[in-house]
Amino acid sequence: MDKYVIGIDFGTLSARALLVHAKSGEEIADCEYKYPHGVMDDNIPCGKKLNRDWALQHPQDYLDALARLIPRVIKKADLTPDDIIGIGIDFTACTILPVLNDGTPLCFLPEFMQNEHAYVKLWKHHAAQDKANKINNIADRRDESWLIRYGGKISSEWSLPKLLELKEEAPDVFSKMAYFIEAGDWLTWLLCGNAQRNACAAGYKGLWNKKDGNPSKEFLRELDPELENIYETKMGLPVKPSYERAGLINKKGSLLTSLNEGTAVSMSNIDGHACVPAASITAPGKMLLILGTSFVHKVLYTEEKAIPGICGVVEDGILPGYFGYEAGQCGGGDHFAWFIENSVPYKYYIEAKEQGMDIYGYMRSKASGLKAGESGLLALDWWNGNRSVLVDADLSGLMVGMTLRTKPEEIYRALVEATAFGTKTIIDNFISSGIPITEIVAAGGIAKKDPLLLQIMSDVTDMPIYIAHTPYASALGSAIFASVAAGSESGGYDDVYEAIRNMGKVDDFVYKPNKENVDIYKRLYKDYRVLHDYFGRGGNDVMKRLKDLAKQHD
Amino acid sequence: MDKYVIGIDFGTLSARALLVHAKSGEEIADCEYKYPHGVMDDNIPCGKKLNRDWALQHPQDYLDALARLIPRVIKKADLTPDDIIGIGIDFTACTILPVLNDGTPLCFLPEFMQNEHAYVKLWKHHAAQDKANKINNIADRRDESWLIRYGGKISSEWSLPKLLELKEEAPDVFSKMAYFIEAGDWLTWLLCGNAQRNACAAGYKGLWNKKDGNPSKEFLRELDPELENIYETKMGLPVKPSYERAGLINKKGSLLTSLNEGTAVSMSNIDGHACVPAASITAPGKMLLILGTSFVHKVLYTEEKAIPGICGVVEDGILPGYFGYEAGQCGGGDHFAWFIENSVPYKYYIEAKEQGMDIYGYMRSKASGLKAGESGLLALDWWNGNRSVLVDADLSGLMVGMTLRTKPEEIYRALVEATAFGTKTIIDNFISSGIPITEIVAAGGIAKKDPLLLQIMSDVTDMPIYIAHTPYASALGSAIFASVAAGSESGGYDDVYEAIRNMGKVDDFVYKPNKENVDIYKRLYKDYRVLHDYFGRGGNDVMKRLKDLAKQHD
Repeated sequence: MDKYVIGIDFGTLSARALLVHAKSGEEIADCEYKYPHGVMDDNIPCGKKLNRDWALQHPQDYLDALARLIPRVIKKADLTPDDIIGIGIDFTACTILPVLNDGTPLCFLPEFMQNEHAYVKLWKHHAAQDKANKINNIADRRDESWLIRYGGKISSEWSLPKLLELKEEAPDVFSKMAYFIEAGDWLTWLLCGNAQRNACAAGYKGLWNKKDGNPSKEFLRELDPELENIYETKMGLPVKPSYERAGLINKKGSLLTSLNEGTAVSMSNIDGHACVPAASITAPGKMLLILGTSFVHKVLYTEEKAIPGICGVVEDGILPGYFGYEAGQCGGGDHFAWFIENSVPYKYYIEAKEQGMDIYGYMRSKASGLKAGESGLLALDWWNGNRSVLVDADLSGLMVGMTLRTKPEEIYRALVEATAFGTKTIIDNFISSGIPITEIVAAGGIAKKDPLLLQIMSDVTDMPIYIAHTPYASALGSAIFASVAAGSESGGYDDVYEAIRNMGKVDDFVYKPNKENVDIYKRLYKDYRVLHDYFGRGGNDVMKRLKDLAKQHD
Repeated sequence: MDKYVIGIDFGTLSARALLVHAKSGEEIADCEYKYPHGVMDDNIPCGKKLNRDWALQHPQDYLDALARLIPRVIKKADLTPDDIIGIGIDFTACTILPVLNDGTPLCFLPEFMQNEHAYVKLWKHHAAQDKANKINNIADRRDESWLIRYGGKISSEWSLPKLLELKEEAPDVFSKMAYFIEAGDWLTWLLCGNAQRNACAAGYKGLWNKKDGNPSKEFLRELDPELENIYETKMGLPVKPSYERAGLINKKGSLLTSLNEGTAVSMSNIDGHACVPAASITAPGKMLLILGTSFVHKVLYTEEKAIPGICGVVEDGILPGYFGYEAGQCGGGDHFAWFIENSVPYKYYIEAKEQGMDIYGYMRSKASGLKAGESGLLALDWWNGNRSVLVDADLSGLMVGMTLRTKPEEIYRALVEATAFGTKTIIDNFISSGIPITEIVAAGGIAKKDPLLLQIMSDVTDMPIYIAHTPYASALGSAIFASVAAGSESGGYDDVYEAIRNMGKVDDFVYKPNKENVDIYKRLYKDYRVLHDYFGRGGNDVMKRLKDLAKQHD
C-alpha cells in the first residue's frame, strides 16, 4: 500500500504543508496558512510599542498552523492519518523563543504577556546588533576558533546575541525560562516529547560544532560571567542532525495534529537548507542557489576548509558525511523590485498595459532583447550590503557607464548581471579555497519565473543551471527527511541519499551557457572584481562615508 | 531722441531678435524665427542621405531670418528703421560654409546643390573626428604652441577639421570656394560689404591667436601640403574683435533687412560669449556660468596662463584688454532631462498631476525637501563625457550609494549635485592656475527656472550666484556690441565697458551659500574628486572598456 509523508515549511509570513508520496516524492497536495499575527514589528498584542529593528512572532500562530494544515492537506489528498508515516518541519532561523521546562512559551503566561522579550524573536529581529558587536569583538580578540567558520563575523540575527539581549534587557524572562529554543525545535518537542536542538540551526546560527561543541566557558565568562554555563543549562539541549528522527508523535502531538500516535517525526531543519535534498543534491560539485529577495548558496564538501566571507560551515549540517557550506548575497531579487518600484518610467507602464503584460514581464522582455555588454553598464549588487565574501552591511550600490542614450531596460539588465557577478564571486571564492563547484541547481521563488536571470547566471558562471522541480523546495526537503525518519519498515527510506535520489527532482530543462556571452561576461566580470575590491576592501571607503552622512539625517 | 539697437541671436534651431534701448538696454520687443530646414542630419533638400554624425544647415534660413525678424521686431516695438542705430549678431560656432568671393554660398549653385559638403556645417557636425585626431596627433608630436591654449586637444567641431574634411572628401567644393567662413561672419559681410573674421570664433574655434596669428606653415604642410598657405587664401580674411564695428549697412544690406543704409553693424560673436556683457561682467573674478543642456564657463583675466583642460583662451576674445577663458561641461541640464525621461516612476506622474505640477517641477519640489548629504548618493556628471578638465568624451556616468531605500528624488538631486561638483572642479582648476573667481553670474535657459540647481550650485561652490536679468542674454550681448558699433555720436556708446555697465543687468535676487550645506558639500566634493581622478585619470579605465564593448553592438 502507498504511504505518504508531510513536510511543513514555516516561512516568515505563513506556513505551507506539502503531502508527498513517501517513495516517489510525487506531490499530492499542498496548503498554506497565513499567520494571524504575521510579523510583529510595530507592537505586541497588548498594544505595547516596539522599537525600531524589532521583529517578533506569536508562537500560537505556529500551533494553529500545525492544527489546521495537517488535517486539511490530508483531506485534500483524499487520504487518512493511517496513510501518513512521517512528518518533518523546517523553519526560518534563528527564530527563537523562551519556554518553561514543559515547553510552555513564556509569552503564554499572564505575567509575561506584556513583556516583548517573552515572544518569539524572528530571524530578522535586528535589535541585538550591539550584542553581536560585543560578541564579535571579544571573539576576535580572543581569536576564538569558531569565528572563522562564520567568515570572521557573526550576525545579530543569531542565537547568542539574542540570548545576551534577553539576559541584559529582560532579566526576569531570562531567569524564568528553562530553555531558549529555536521555534522549529520547540515544535518537534511538542509533537514527540523530545526536547532537542537540530544540528543545522545549532551549527549555522548557534555556534555549535560537531568536533568542538559550543563556545568555551572562558569565552562565555568574558562575555558575561552569568553565561558561563549557559550551554549546559538554558541552551543545553542535546544536538541531533536534521536528517535524523526526533521521535514519534505522542498523545499530545496526536491531539494537536490529528496524526496517529507513533507517526515518525524528523528533526527540524532550516528552511533554506531543506532545499538541498529537494534539489536532488547528494554530493560535492553541485551548488544550490536559492533565488529570493536575497540569494543563498549551499555546497557540500568532504573536508572542512577555512573560507573567508562565508556564512558558515557545519559538519553534517545539511547531509550526513559532508561539511555543509553556506554563503549569501544580502540583495538579490530585491534589487529588481527596487528598480520596478522606483525607476520604471510612465511610458513603460502604458506599453506594458497595451501589451497585456505585467511590468516585471515587460521589463524582462525588453532586457532580454539586449545583448551581453550592449548596455555599456556595470553595477555592484550591494543595494542591501554585501554578505559574502566581504561581510559588510555598510557597503552600498554602484552603477557605472550611463550615457544620455541609456535606457531603463539597460539599467534593469545591469542589475540582473550584477547579482550574477555577485554569485560568481562567491563561487570563485569557494573554488579558490578548494571546494569544487561545476554545476548549479536553482530553487526559490524566482527560479521558475525569471528566465532572463537564469540565463545570465549561467552565462556569467559558465555553468549549467538545473531548476528544482518543485516550487515548494523547503517543504519537499522536510518531507524527504520525514520519509527517512519513518524508515523503510514503515514505507519510507533508511538511507537519506536513497530517499533524495528518489524523491528530489530537477526539471528536464537546463540553462546552458551561451559561449558568446560567456566571453563577454568574462571581460565584464574582471571589471566587476576590480570595482568590488576597490570599493569593498578599503581602496575607497566612500560608501561608508556616504552612509555616515546620510545617517546624520535619520 | 531715444535710439535703439537690435541684437540677433542665431541658435541651433531658430534665430531670435531683441530690440533694446541703445542707452539703458531696456528690452522693448523680441521675436523668433524657426529655421524651415532646421538641422539637416538625415538628408539634404535633394533627398540625398547623410551619414551618421552629420549635421548641416541651409544658409537661406539665416537670410530669411534676417529679412523677417528685423522688420517684425521694429514693428512690434512701434518704431521705424530711423530709430535703429545699430545691429549685432551672434552665432553658434564653429558653424561654417564655403562661399564664392562675392559671398554666394556654394550650395546655392546648381552644380553643388547635390553635394552635402557645399552646405553649412553646423557646430555639432561630428563627422570630421578622424581629421581632428590627425590634427591633434601632428600638433602634439610637433609640440605646437597653440595646443595648450585649447587644453591640449582640439574638437572635431572646429574649423580646421571641417576644412580638412572638405579638402579630402570634396576637392571640387574645396577648389571652387573662395572662402570657408563662419556663418556669423558671412552675415555681417552681406550686411556691410566687409568680409572679415570675428576674433572670438577665429580664436576659440579657428586656432587664431592675437600674438602668434594662425598655425604655422610648417605644421600645415605636414598636415597637408596643399594647406600650407590656407590662412592666406581661403581662410585668409582679416580678423577683428567682436566688440568692434564691422561696417555700415550698405545698399544690399538695407534691401535685405529694411534697415537704413549707414546703420552700424558690429562684428559677429559666438552666442555663449555674447552672454558675458549681457550678464554685466566687466572684470576678472566673476565667472559667467551658462546653464543649458550643457554648461559653459567664461572668465576674464589680465594675463595668459596655461591651464589644463580648458576649451580655450583668447586675447580680446570676449572683451577688450582681457584674455577670455572658456571651459565647459559636456553634460548639464541634459542629465536632468535624461532622468525625467527614463527614470521617473509611474506614481510620481500621477502625484504630479494631482498636484497640478509638471513633472520637472514636481521632482524639483521633492528633491528640494531633502537635505544635503541625506540621500547617501554621489554621482559623476559624465553622462555625456567630460569636457573640462579631463577633455575625454569617452568617460561616462557613475552613481554610488544606492540602497533599497533610495528614492527617485534622491537620484535626481544627486545628479544636480554632480553637475555642481563638475562646475566646482572647473572653478578650482582656474583658481589653482592663478585665475581668481569669487562670484558667479548664471545665464541660460535653466538659470531662471531651477532654483534647486542654483542653490546647490551656490552651496557647492561657496559663492554667491547672480542671475542675468534677461532670458535672451546672447541677443542682449549682441545689442550691446551694436550700441558700441554705433558710437556715442549716433546715440550709442564709444566705450564697451560703459555700454555694459549701463545695458547689462542682473536680478536683485542673489543665491547665497547656506553655511551648513557648504560644510557637507565640502566633504562630498572631496569624495567626488577622488572618484573623478580614479575614473578620469587612468586609475581605472572601466568606462572606456564598457564603451568599447557597447560599440561592438552598434
